[in-house]
Amino acid sequence: MILKSTCLDENSLLLEETLYHVANGYLGVRGNFEEKLPLSRSVRGFYLNGFYDTVELQYPEKLFGFPENVQRMINLPDVQTMRIYFDGEALDPLGAPLVEYYRTLDTADGLAKRTIKYSHSGGIITLCFTRMASFVRPELFLTLVKIEGTNVSGFLEIHAGVDSNVRNYSNPDDPRVAAEAISHIVPGDVTLLDDGGIVSFSTTKSELHASIVQRFSGNFDSLDIRRNDGGFSAVLSHKLSAGESLSLAKFTVISDSRHVSDPAANAIAIAEKCVLAGKDKIIAEQRQYLERFRAAAMPEISGCPDIERALDFNIFSLLQSTARDGVSALASKGISGEGYEGHYFWDTETYCFPFFLFTQPETAKSLLEFRYNTLSSAREHAKILGHTKGALFPWRTISGSECSSYFPSGSAQYHINGDIAHSFAQYWYATGDMDFMASKGAEVLVETARLWLEVGHFAADGLFHIHTVTGPDEYTCLINNNYYTNRCAEANLRSAAVLCTELWEKNLSDKVVSATGVTRKEVELFIKAANSMYFPYDEKLDIHAQDDSFLSKKLWDLSSTPKENFPLLLHYHPLFLYRHQVCKQADTVLSHFLFEDGITESTMRNSFDYYEKITTHDSSLSRCVFSIMAARLGMTDKAYDYYMDTLYTDLENTHGNTKDGLHTANLGGSWLALVMGFAGLRLKADGLHFAPHLPSKWESVSFKLCFRGRILSVCLYAEKMVFSLLSGDSFRIFVDGQSYLLETQLTV
Amino acid sequence: MILKSTCLDENSLLLEETLYHVANGYLGVRGNFEEKLPLSRSVRGFYLNGFYDTVELQYPEKLFGFPENVQRMINLPDVQTMRIYFDGEALDPLGAPLVEYYRTLDTADGLAKRTIKYSHSGGIITLCFTRMASFVRPELFLTLVKIEGTNVSGFLEIHAGVDSNVRNYSNPDDPRVAAEAISHIVPGDVTLLDDGGIVSFSTTKSELHASIVQRFSGNFDSLDIRRNDGGFSAVLSHKLSAGESLSLAKFTVISDSRHVSDPAANAIAIAEKCVLAGKDKIIAEQRQYLERFRAAAMPEISGCPDIERALDFNIFSLLQSTARDGVSALASKGISGEGYEGHYFWDTETYCFPFFLFTQPETAKSLLEFRYNTLSSAREHAKILGHTKGALFPWRTISGSECSSYFPSGSAQYHINGDIAHSFAQYWYATGDMDFMASKGAEVLVETARLWLEVGHFAADGLFHIHTVTGPDEYTCLINNNYYTNRCAEANLRSAAVLCTELWEKNLSDKVVSATGVTRKEVELFIKAANSMYFPYDEKLDIHAQDDSFLSKKLWDLSSTPKENFPLLLHYHPLFLYRHQVCKQADTVLSHFLFEDGITESTMRNSFDYYEKITTHDSSLSRCVFSIMAARLGMTDKAYDYYMDTLYTDLENTHGNTKDGLHTANLGGSWLALVMGFAGLRLKADGLHFAPHLPSKWESVSFKLCFRGRILSVCLYAEKMVFSLLSGDSFRIFVDGQSYLLETQLTV
Repeated sequence: MILKSTCLDENSLLLEETLYHVANGYLGVRGNFEEKLPLSRSVRGFYLNGFYDTVELQYPEKLFGFPENVQRMINLPDVQTMRIYFDGEALDPLGAPLVEYYRTLDTADGLAKRTIKYSHSGGIITLCFTRMASFVRPELFLTLVKIEGTNVSGFLEIHAGVDSNVRNYSNPDDPRVAAEAISHIVPGDVTLLDDGGIVSFSTTKSELHASIVQRFSGNFDSLDIRRNDGGFSAVLSHKLSAGESLSLAKFTVISDSRHVSDPAANAIAIAEKCVLAGKDKIIAEQRQYLERFRAAAMPEISGCPDIERALDFNIFSLLQSTARDGVSALASKGISGEGYEGHYFWDTETYCFPFFLFTQPETAKSLLEFRYNTLSSAREHAKILGHTKGALFPWRTISGSECSSYFPSGSAQYHINGDIAHSFAQYWYATGDMDFMASKGAEVLVETARLWLEVGHFAADGLFHIHTVTGPDEYTCLINNNYYTNRCAEANLRSAAVLCTELWEKNLSDKVVSATGVTRKEVELFIKAANSMYFPYDEKLDIHAQDDSFLSKKLWDLSSTPKENFPLLLHYHPLFLYRHQVCKQADTVLSHFLFEDGITESTMRNSFDYYEKITTHDSSLSRCVFSIMAARLGMTDKAYDYYMDTLYTDLENTHGNTKDGLHTANLGGSWLALVMGFAGLRLKADGLHFAPHLPSKWESVSFKLCFRGRILSVCLYAEKMVFSLLSGDSFRIFVDGQSYLLETQLTV
Repeated sequence: MILKSTCLDENSLLLEETLYHVANGYLGVRGNFEEKLPLSRSVRGFYLNGFYDTVELQYPEKLFGFPENVQRMINLPDVQTMRIYFDGEALDPLGAPLVEYYRTLDTADGLAKRTIKYSHSGGIITLCFTRMASFVRPELFLTLVKIEGTNVSGFLEIHAGVDSNVRNYSNPDDPRVAAEAISHIVPGDVTLLDDGGIVSFSTTKSELHASIVQRFSGNFDSLDIRRNDGGFSAVLSHKLSAGESLSLAKFTVISDSRHVSDPAANAIAIAEKCVLAGKDKIIAEQRQYLERFRAAAMPEISGCPDIERALDFNIFSLLQSTARDGVSALASKGISGEGYEGHYFWDTETYCFPFFLFTQPETAKSLLEFRYNTLSSAREHAKILGHTKGALFPWRTISGSECSSYFPSGSAQYHINGDIAHSFAQYWYATGDMDFMASKGAEVLVETARLWLEVGHFAADGLFHIHTVTGPDEYTCLINNNYYTNRCAEANLRSAAVLCTELWEKNLSDKVVSATGVTRKEVELFIKAANSMYFPYDEKLDIHAQDDSFLSKKLWDLSSTPKENFPLLLHYHPLFLYRHQVCKQADTVLSHFLFEDGITESTMRNSFDYYEKITTHDSSLSRCVFSIMAARLGMTDKAYDYYMDTLYTDLENTHGNTKDGLHTANLGGSWLALVMGFAGLRLKADGLHFAPHLPSKWESVSFKLCFRGRILSVCLYAEKMVFSLLSGDSFRIFVDGQSYLLETQLTV
């Protein structure tokens, strides 16, 4: 897929900086212009996934347990800038009418290219920039520049280098980005090389270190490297003859102290290998890598190239966003911008994890490792919230501790424990990886399960109630018995109990028992609480109530709300929102997708209809779920419409804030809604279940799935589903509730 | 009453700075040592009631409608300091063992005195400081100093003056005081006088101005006045012979731009009058003023001098705290410290207002004027919270706009509207002042009443429900149908309706109709909502539920909570508190006191018993209410115990934070619990109702009341009540539900 823009529209530049960013799960570089645009037109950003500084929070009224320090993904030294002078005059893309301009992003090779042509002294100067974040060499950000003169000659000078004088982006009036712009970089050693330099730096408070090596190669006449304040400048000079071209490769390699003890040495070594390999090899590797990825991960929608292209962009972006190192994870904005300060939310598990689970199980495992590695922080967090045992994963975090400073729609979202537990259980069902579950998964399941016993209680009616939490819908906070939360809790308690029982049976329980002290008696309590879980249900409406009091609130009339008042959170006081029946996003409807067993068709349908009327989809986590459930309920056209909204959220900037970064949950949702919506895939303890609902506009959809060591392809037509087992042993699958044996091929 | 301390205990100094403060409703000076103690031992404070600066708030996550600017009562230039040197050596009260030390506060003349004796060269130097905030001349803070040498002579030098280099107190870890220490003073003109100086200054942002004139008189040998940075220094020199004494009077007069257009000229003129009047006359005036006040306001408890003394302190402190100018009001800490940043809360109306209503109706009226004057801010506030009409008084304020930055226990406390409306209705019942009600009261009652129609709604059961508010108990936030709030709302709606109807009948409705546009149809809706108000009630327990879900929460076991974990708000996350049945203070119990009509004895008693077990009284607004309701229910011994706790809250620093200022609500509560508790006074539309419950330890209690132009005295004995009409026409009163005509004297 090639994303292309042919118009240099100043008002679209911030958006394009996100869309044309390049990232590889480790590093991310916004699609900034090398020439450096004015601050109002650009958020210049270079990030490492999960490379953070600590920021002290000031509260006007600080109550007990409010986080004092939070993490923020920081903007790293500027490695992008290349100011280009021709005969002493700066070539400024916003300063003069251009002869031609276009930029592209190609998902086949992961290259972002930009071409710009200036008219000069009767001739034309053509600049081509190519950028790449290497998937094969995650520390490498490669920039290629080619400058040609047509009927013009002159003296070229390119000012480049590494500049440590950078700040993070901020907006005090938008709760979704940082409130204050400060620099997080403490410059360290600078070493000059013949062809570049080495710049080391630290964070101001989090005690992380990193080193950047930047080296230049090409046919320039001369290169002058000079040290400056915390970085270096490189001036490349070249006498350009008419018809000749200057070609330049800039290898920027970064390494950090979370991964190696000597980032400088590591960066130097990697940079050396990169320079030796050369740009052509590096680009070829990248193409190969992406070919393999696409073969495993990219669905096909026959006869719909536009839709395929959008999906391709989304899935490629998801890959760009996701760490594979267990040290970092998948931020809600990926590595494409500073929205939500680079924090990890439940978006990772609930919206993106399934894609990796079924296409790159190792990446899925790595995401779980990240949670496992932060379990001690989650235990601390539970203590801060008053609990004597168990773990509570933070609502938003980088290093593992809670970074939400507004707990009603932060720490109160206890459901994140259930979401994470669910992803561990799903991993177990999909991979059967008992080693991992015994050594790590069980500990997470037990610590999250036992927290529900702390949060909830057996009430006078003998049922298990969970009070004072917030569900996914942040327009309704601090309520009792959020249906979604209670379902998550039930599943969490049950999967912990089932896993522990199996570990005891198989004599694999040593690790979890020593780590958690879990006993058979406690597991019985898990089961009792799960069996006694209370679920708010309205008999008259035959719907699940979002919580105990939701249905008794005033209904919000969305049809008479002025368009400019969306998203509501930016136009109404939370008290006003909380007092009404109005939902930011799928809540009960999401639970009907994730936990469908035992729910009647009519309750699902009535709930869908009821909540659809009062859901604003102000969150990008909503429409994909409505698409899935609409498909599930046979409303395929509606599902299709929601799906289109999902597909184009970032490409068409429908939420208006893609400039702050991609909506990764929605990216994951665009795979989910295809596979779990139209193909109706559900992963349960007994295997894969399908319930197909192909949109009438489509001929067929096909995709591949990894499942317990197998690879299968699924092809969905109007009248049939065709399953092919590409590798691995035959097994039973379920289609519309009916079990089938899949040997090599199966048509249902 | 004389408060006395004979021990200079460094750990008690901060507490004593509050207890020995002098104030007159306009200005307040903490009981600091003139000699200036180290910062850790002292919060040096000079304040004007409601003289504030604007402070910009920074939120880590700012949602729509969060206040951007709040007000803070500011610490004014230091006018207290007098460093005293004897033969060049500073006399430092903490630096040397003292021969004698004591300090006193006398409620008969409002003088705070401090005597300190140093041993020096075989002799003794005696320093006596006397301080007074004049009730007759509110702009005057007077300090007298007398220094004597016994068997010692030497050279005295006193360094005094006005110092503008001051800051406010702060503690980032205590939500009850300001988070950051900043200076709010912008120095202005300084003019030197022969006997002192004039210092003008402004606030940094709120554009308020004030001028201080300080003049010295006495038998000192010489006085040297010098200008310094934003103020002036005065050095008084005197050769002290053995046996001789130096007497010095320092007249500090302050005037501010809220009251006069030229504060400097005003302060100069007043200072001139003060100096001419001289200290003796000023002290005599003060004594006379307080005699009159005490005669009208001070109850007598026969045979209990200690209890009388404590009550005397409380009532005197209440007088010191309360403005009489309609421009400012009564802060939760009075003018004695910086706790809660000098803000006005509902404490004023619900806890202190009745005292003034029955003893100084003009002061009560002035407090209502303050609310009336801020009605436009309350209308703005309602808009911010999403309402299309009506007014919502801020939870905490100085100038009228909301200063709470944590809305769950701030703006969500809509009951403040009902509390304020209740005080207007009570004023109406107690004074019959129809002019005031027609010109101002009705506007407040209508604007507050109509807000309930905005906040609440008629639900499916046909009843009027009020969702997502917080009641008085801040350990339970954002709940539905808080019983207390719904009662307040009902009373508010009803009193607005009754008043409007009466104004229409009497042709007095022009003002309220033009100001609010209220119609008969809207008033009908007020009545309909009041008549349909829903009140949560638990049949099995026969109690009113604090809110819809309160009784279904986990019970907090207070008996097993470690003592050091109180107050709970400093030791538990709000989520944990909100999830439990635990109350910071009287909530439902308070409503049974304020709105008793139609509640059965058994419901009151059961509710009292139920909530008593789970109430921590972490708020100082609680015990007096439990005392009142215990008396109401005939548990006189229990009422007495709660009353003792109430009386000594500040004197014995039982909440541990009297250093930050007095608990004025509790001061008011100590009068309330006597008059409304033991004497059982209730003010209703039909007049005064009494229901006596004299504690067995007391012989009798007597107090005076103003009521509709009358003054009556009430004397309560074990077996009888004696009422005397001291002035005004005969009228009917109610005792234990029975109506009696009071002509001159009545024994029941």
